[in-house]
Amino acid sequence: MTIIALDAMGGDHAPRAEVEGAILAARELGVRILLVGIEDVVRQELDRHRHRGLPIEVVNATEVITMTDSPSQAFRRKKESSLHVAARLVRDGKADALVTAGNTGAAMTVARFVLGTLPSVDRPALAAAFPNMKEKVSVILDVGANVDSKAAQIEQYAVMGEIYYRAIWGVKRPRVALLSIGEEEMKGNEVTREAFNRLKHLPLNFTGNVEGRDVFRGNVDVIVCDGFIGNIALKISEGVVEHLGGMLKKAIKSSLASQLGYALSRRAFGEFRKRTDYSEYGGAPLLGVRGITVIGHGRSNPNAVKNAIRVAAELCRARVNETIEQELSAAAAVPARG
Amino acid sequence: MTIIALDAMGGDHAPRAEVEGAILAARELGVRILLVGIEDVVRQELDRHRHRGLPIEVVNATEVITMTDSPSQAFRRKKESSLHVAARLVRDGKADALVTAGNTGAAMTVARFVLGTLPSVDRPALAAAFPNMKEKVSVILDVGANVDSKAAQIEQYAVMGEIYYRAIWGVKRPRVALLSIGEEEMKGNEVTREAFNRLKHLPLNFTGNVEGRDVFRGNVDVIVCDGFIGNIALKISEGVVEHLGGMLKKAIKSSLASQLGYALSRRAFGEFRKRTDYSEYGGAPLLGVRGITVIGHGRSNPNAVKNAIRVAAELCRARVNETIEQELSAAAAVPARG
Repeated sequence: MTIIALDAMGGDHAPRAEVEGAILAARELGVRILLVGIEDVVRQELDRHRHRGLPIEVVNATEVITMTDSPSQAFRRKKESSLHVAARLVRDGKADALVTAGNTGAAMTVARFVLGTLPSVDRPALAAAFPNMKEKVSVILDVGANVDSKAAQIEQYAVMGEIYYRAIWGVKRPRVALLSIGEEEMKGNEVTREAFNRLKHLPLNFTGNVEGRDVFRGNVDVIVCDGFIGNIALKISEGVVEHLGGMLKKAIKSSLASQLGYALSRRAFGEFRKRTDYSEYGGAPLLGVRGITVIGHGRSNPNAVKNAIRVAAELCRARVNETIEQELSAAAAVPARG
Repeated sequence: MTIIALDAMGGDHAPRAEVEGAILAARELGVRILLVGIEDVVRQELDRHRHRGLPIEVVNATEVITMTDSPSQAFRRKKESSLHVAARLVRDGKADALVTAGNTGAAMTVARFVLGTLPSVDRPALAAAFPNMKEKVSVILDVGANVDSKAAQIEQYAVMGEIYYRAIWGVKRPRVALLSIGEEEMKGNEVTREAFNRLKHLPLNFTGNVEGRDVFRGNVDVIVCDGFIGNIALKISEGVVEHLGGMLKKAIKSSLASQLGYALSRRAFGEFRKRTDYSEYGGAPLLGVRGITVIGHGRSNPNAVKNAIRVAAELCRARVNETIEQELSAAAAVPARG
């Protein structure tokens, strides 16, 4: 049985969302959960639910990392935090995967330095899933683990992202593209042009450059870019969704007729909302660290926590890290290309 | 009377949208329009409308740049295109501003090299307006004129963007921010950190870093970034709007109840659509060239063309280029800072 070390103190709604998510996951997914956090607090929350017989254990941690802690301070000064303790459980082989909905920067730093990176990986990359118009998912990486990525690192993101996509969405030859500002090979900035040249020599289904609009069109499965750009892309998308949602709400409230209209079309809106709800898509894996790590959104609800656990369990079962290591070391063995 | 040289052959709906937009502008805005394009075609379109007495003239051009022409080819090989002829009218003092809804890359290249850049400007920047939650507008620049911008260039974008915002939206001290991946000064990539350090010494209302989500929150007025990043931000936003619009349409069609609901709330949706319609916000000025240049969206309808002309006329009347030159040469006179 796959064992998940879950940071119970991480998200905005911790430990409630984490505990409820753990219960859902333990019931539905056939995983064992180590709930890591301030023991009294976690146990109290756990006891508010029926959990007898479920494979859930509480592991004590004496500190909590907050959303305002800086990643480096959180890493260096809060070694007894739930995040550190959960990461050490993975490092020491007591759990297979780390899941947290806490401070993303702290999670990336702790995972990277407590677990270490895979031997062939230069920099781990955070991969986010975007729902697209084809009612499938496009994955973008890196969305914020690294800035000023070099072309060789973007090449590694492509290999890791493709393996992740295969593992979670069961597509045999995912289409991989490079995020740029035009489709032609020569479009883009210096790093992008160099990355294009590397990607076209990789043994994967590289379809060339895509533009920002293509992220949602579903013409490609995996989109690679530097983490500064990917993070802005992610946050911009969230911003637009939030903005349009707000406008729609205002428009609906503007008259009795439109309120009545809304009541009639409520089911349609529910579907709409579900499709734009990031919690349906699980967390974002930090690919390239030794030990599966999945980082959920800070606002994760129990469903989002469960889905992050599901992604972590599937990545473990698919032996994604072994595959990354194999494919990257094979790619490195190929002589330099022009 | 401000004279606008309008590329009549530029957009996807040229020359119809351009001619109708010119008529609207000539009627409503008190500007004179030089409609530049294949004379027969433009005149034929013009004659389908009442235009007697309106200050509109047709200027012949024998070539047309298409959306698939590369910017450099369009610039070098189609010197008799409507875009070139319109730009030369501005260069030669026969018009005050150039407006086009054509190939953006070609428009930027032709404007930059036919008109030249202002003496104190290193690189011109394309500035796009985004509607925000405060029912105001945030401007982002650069959205694609330059990639691999240096910190000193981003500093110039800030000065130019602030002047543009003052001129068009009448705000005395627009809030200027730097697009990054965290609010703290040290967040971001190398160029962003250096740009932060420069921006905080400028005599403008610099509020620090903002993240992608803030673009729509309306906490800031002018957001500066490198053109590769700004272009991706713009296209991602368009992509999300397109995606959500498509999902909403599908949801509405999904049942009779929701169709009925939609009929009842149609006015609310109309307002919603108007707020997300880029054509309401005019075109994007290419700031920093000698001669006001405004580039509309390729899909511009007559209303969008009219609004692009309005923005161009307002930038002329506000003497934006003189102000840019003054403020940038004053900034350059300040000794180097740490």
